[in-house]
Amino acid sequence: MELNGVEIEDTFAEAFPIKIARVLITAASERWVNVAATEATGFGTSVIMCPAEGGIEKFVTGDETPDGRPGAYIQICTFGYKSLEEQLLERIGQCVLTAPTTAVFNGLPDAEKQFDTGFKLKFFADGMESETEVAGRKAYKIPMMEGDFIVEHSIGAVGGVAGGNFFILGDSQMSALTAAEVAVDAIKKIEGSITPFPGGIVASGSKVGANKYKFLKATANEKFCPSIKKEVEGTEIPDDVEAVYEIVINGLNTDVVRDAMQTGIKAAVTIPGIKKITAGNFGGSLGPYKFNLRDLL
Amino acid sequence: MELNGVEIEDTFAEAFPIKIARVLITAASERWVNVAATEATGFGTSVIMCPAEGGIEKFVTGDETPDGRPGAYIQICTFGYKSLEEQLLERIGQCVLTAPTTAVFNGLPDAEKQFDTGFKLKFFADGMESETEVAGRKAYKIPMMEGDFIVEHSIGAVGGVAGGNFFILGDSQMSALTAAEVAVDAIKKIEGSITPFPGGIVASGSKVGANKYKFLKATANEKFCPSIKKEVEGTEIPDDVEAVYEIVINGLNTDVVRDAMQTGIKAAVTIPGIKKITAGNFGGSLGPYKFNLRDLL
Amino acid sequence: MELNGVEIEDTFAEAFPIKIARVLITAASERWVNVAATEATGFGTSVIMCPAEGGIEKFVTGDETPDGRPGAYIQICTFGYKSLEEQLLERIGQCVLTAPTTAVFNGLPDAEKQFDTGFKLKFFADGMESETEVAGRKAYKIPMMEGDFIVEHSIGAVGGVAGGNFFILGDSQMSALTAAEVAVDAIKKIEGSITPFPGGIVASGSKVGANKYKFLKATANEKFCPSIKKEVEGTEIPDDVEAVYEIVINGLNTDVVRDAMQTGIKAAVTIPGIKKITAGNFGGSLGPYKFNLRDLL
Amino acid sequence: MELNGVEIEDTFAEAFPIKIARVLITAASERWVNVAATEATGFGTSVIMCPAEGGIEKFVTGDETPDGRPGAYIQICTFGYKSLEEQLLERIGQCVLTAPTTAVFNGLPDAEKQFDTGFKLKFFADGMESETEVAGRKAYKIPMMEGDFIVEHSIGAVGGVAGGNFFILGDSQMSALTAAEVAVDAIKKIEGSITPFPGGIVASGSKVGANKYKFLKATANEKFCPSIKKEVEGTEIPDDVEAVYEIVINGLNTDVVRDAMQTGIKAAVTIPGIKKITAGNFGGSLGPYKFNLRDLL
Repeated sequence: MELNGVEIEDTFAEAFPIKIARVLITAASERWVNVAATEATGFGTSVIMCPAEGGIEKFVTGDETPDGRPGAYIQICTFGYKSLEEQLLERIGQCVLTAPTTAVFNGLPDAEKQFDTGFKLKFFADGMESETEVAGRKAYKIPMMEGDFIVEHSIGAVGGVAGGNFFILGDSQMSALTAAEVAVDAIKKIEGSITPFPGGIVASGSKVGANKYKFLKATANEKFCPSIKKEVEGTEIPDDVEAVYEIVINGLNTDVVRDAMQTGIKAAVTIPGIKKITAGNFGGSLGPYKFNLRDLL
Repeated sequence: MELNGVEIEDTFAEAFPIKIARVLITAASERWVNVAATEATGFGTSVIMCPAEGGIEKFVTGDETPDGRPGAYIQICTFGYKSLEEQLLERIGQCVLTAPTTAVFNGLPDAEKQFDTGFKLKFFADGMESETEVAGRKAYKIPMMEGDFIVEHSIGAVGGVAGGNFFILGDSQMSALTAAEVAVDAIKKIEGSITPFPGGIVASGSKVGANKYKFLKATANEKFCPSIKKEVEGTEIPDDVEAVYEIVINGLNTDVVRDAMQTGIKAAVTIPGIKKITAGNFGGSLGPYKFNLRDLL
Repeated sequence: MELNGVEIEDTFAEAFPIKIARVLITAASERWVNVAATEATGFGTSVIMCPAEGGIEKFVTGDETPDGRPGAYIQICTFGYKSLEEQLLERIGQCVLTAPTTAVFNGLPDAEKQFDTGFKLKFFADGMESETEVAGRKAYKIPMMEGDFIVEHSIGAVGGVAGGNFFILGDSQMSALTAAEVAVDAIKKIEGSITPFPGGIVASGSKVGANKYKFLKATANEKFCPSIKKEVEGTEIPDDVEAVYEIVINGLNTDVVRDAMQTGIKAAVTIPGIKKITAGNFGGSLGPYKFNLRDLL
Repeated sequence: MELNGVEIEDTFAEAFPIKIARVLITAASERWVNVAATEATGFGTSVIMCPAEGGIEKFVTGDETPDGRPGAYIQICTFGYKSLEEQLLERIGQCVLTAPTTAVFNGLPDAEKQFDTGFKLKFFADGMESETEVAGRKAYKIPMMEGDFIVEHSIGAVGGVAGGNFFILGDSQMSALTAAEVAVDAIKKIEGSITPFPGGIVASGSKVGANKYKFLKATANEKFCPSIKKEVEGTEIPDDVEAVYEIVINGLNTDVVRDAMQTGIKAAVTIPGIKKITAGNFGGSLGPYKFNLRDLL
């Protein structure tokens, strides 16, 4: 199967369950929304060694927010609800409450699981806080140096999907990287999904476990390393490929991960020099979710 | 004392010791330097609840880097060397090694304290790594999906200064915020200092401890909260002030913190509507470093 | 009438007819779309002394473009079709054809007026050009240094509206400026309209003709100049206002100008410190279109 | 000769004389400097069909400007001083005076040739203007809607150099384009030079005159067109090259053009996939300035 002349390998991406909290951050302008959302989702690429995975899902206009100001939905992801609640409190408390002109609203008001993060954050006001309501949502007003910080009482979370992915193989590093960049740009328009790695892109790739250094949980996936393709038996790197980038996608459910993969792949193959699209899986050992590339295209 | 017609209060900023590691990240282009440096220093505003404080110190051209590519110095700060080493390994391993086209070099090659972070990261290559040298620096080459990742053997650290600060009081929230923005822009040119909060700016402010909620280590500094100035006895908010922003500065030593404060204040007072510059201290109870505002101007 | 506590003056914006060509620029990525669109619409604020008015209308995803790549609609505006055709040829030929990875499509394929700009640009290929088709649109392929430049045969134009406007009066310059910035951000989402001034904002304002220097077609509107409000009889600047910014809007028809004014005003009044919204008119002497502020809110 | 493994052809860039005015724009923040400078230098890639060539030379901090605010030097270039004066008046009057928070200073105060552009712009104030002085420079204060616009009396100009250039040949379009991007980034640090094309990059390339369409002054340079390399006798495109980008440089004198070419080439060859650097000349028929590539490296 080919898409825009690019081979789509007959394989699947393997993904696994994760808990996802979704927060709507608003601010005076899009610039300040971006500043807060970026800080709050930083150091958040992979739960292997980051305290959470995080990313900006999408930007919204004032028409779509409770306070009529521009905003962004962010996602924070960990394996369990306990660590998720801690991360929410820390990331909102330290990176959004402290950021210029922000307010915080519940990004999943209909979810069954709700954390009382706003209720807990209000204690920062040291007794000067008050309850308020914004567009029918129960919230708190916390006086601080810039004025009042508004935070909704609850933040919702769901069981979602982590590790949706596809690989972009290019004839040069810059072909593959530009394709990765445009794939991430396209996925930003898909509601419900994030690409948690730096700029949305994975330059490293990894396999579960190790051949040599058994003390590591994840190591380089040598079969997808172009610089050593001549030395690695069973390399997956074709002769005409010089670089590979992976796009990793988390999402609220399998549908949005599927949409994001489809949209990202369609964008990637518009870049000249892309030779092949494939995906990462571990033969089904990693997780219960499978996304077959050819099915979704 | 006045600067550009703005009152400079006769007070001092109080700062305290912290351990700082300094990393030089290079990449194919300034854009990708910024992507990696931003991810690696995210969720890094205050050690109160973040695992480290972090920030981008300055961008440098290819003339100033070992591999001739554009780069940025970042700082990672924690209270002790043990937690600092962990943070370095996690933040470089998860947010820079994974980012497109990056390499990592020692930002403090002459410091006494050196972590073998590069040596440890090379195990990711699972036996395919090799030693190399870049501009006389011992480094490792780690094959990965995009090609080879280069990381220097050691990353240096020093005992530095955290919590240098000044407050900007404005006649409107946007006057104060724009002044904070231009102060941060100006400080970015000062070698050796970072402003770890979101966009370099603190919107919240805090005092040590609490009046009412004694279980909290830090709460809102009610004397600097404009929205409740009429209710707070001893408020520090003048009648004509509607908003306050704080710039917090960490630096490799007291000299760079002093320079950054001076440069930031000079920039802030160019914005119309700024009424006063002051600084945060706790009567000397917090830390050993004092920066008197009038002395440094 | 008040909106979010801000007085909306009972007045109208006066606008006039202009000819508008609409071009769809696509490129490999959003970044390169923006580079080309910015250059092509530069030096394009007002036909008083610019050869055309121009602006980026909106960005679109690959789903919405003939070649599946990201794009942007731009508008180029002059008083007559003859000068408009010249400007199209010059701006596309010099600023889009020369820009990395771009293609050019007709932004108004259903308009009655069509220029054969693509047909004329193909002569640049000096005989090496060929006809092609993209998503059913007749186009030309022009070999050049980066590869092939694709340009559609025709570019459409219509009689549209120029000079839709509103004024934002703020308690400080930075309040008014931030409100102007967020108004422009919001208008960017409205299909069919542009804000041709720098950053979408007019800092100067003007009246038709002059009191003293009769050789000028337009001079400062002294009744809206805050720094001389005490010296100008009949000043329109209230005591508590320190700065005014104007948003000027061009659009394909009166409906989109109305939508853009409404959306922009709603966004502007979310910023603290905004005191009043008004609009510019010349008692009906300038143009036939009138947009009453209170009617559209 | 090779640089970083990339062949440097033994050839020269041919450049020609142009008149250059240099303007220092300051504003409240770097963002607003950039907005005004971008608008003022737009529609300014080549004098073949643009009214002027223009570009942002470099950004400067408040330490380096008369009013202590951040700024940028821009250059405006035309063949004669008469057209240059007109362009200055139009571009400053329409794109800088109208832009938020800007002021305008003389970028070449020591040049022999001085235009009284500030003197002429002051008439916009319609009698409300006043003379003032900023850091010893004679200037005018023009009341307008946002407050007062400050413009220095004179703007200086010199006879400079246009058309300095080099070509980047890459194994894929994205390799060549990324190399072009980093070359332009590097040249931005060189005082005295600009790269007037979109994003600093020429995607088209051209030769003087035409083979077939004699009515055109410039047409595609078929010998450097990769997509038709098999059909063009004497093609300059090697087998392993898929795309070429040209960087065109204007500068105040031959030294800065030489520096910019050297800096840009050094940056370009850091990108993997670059095969060759060459330059454009017309055998000496176009202009008196020759920059030999191997001499400057």
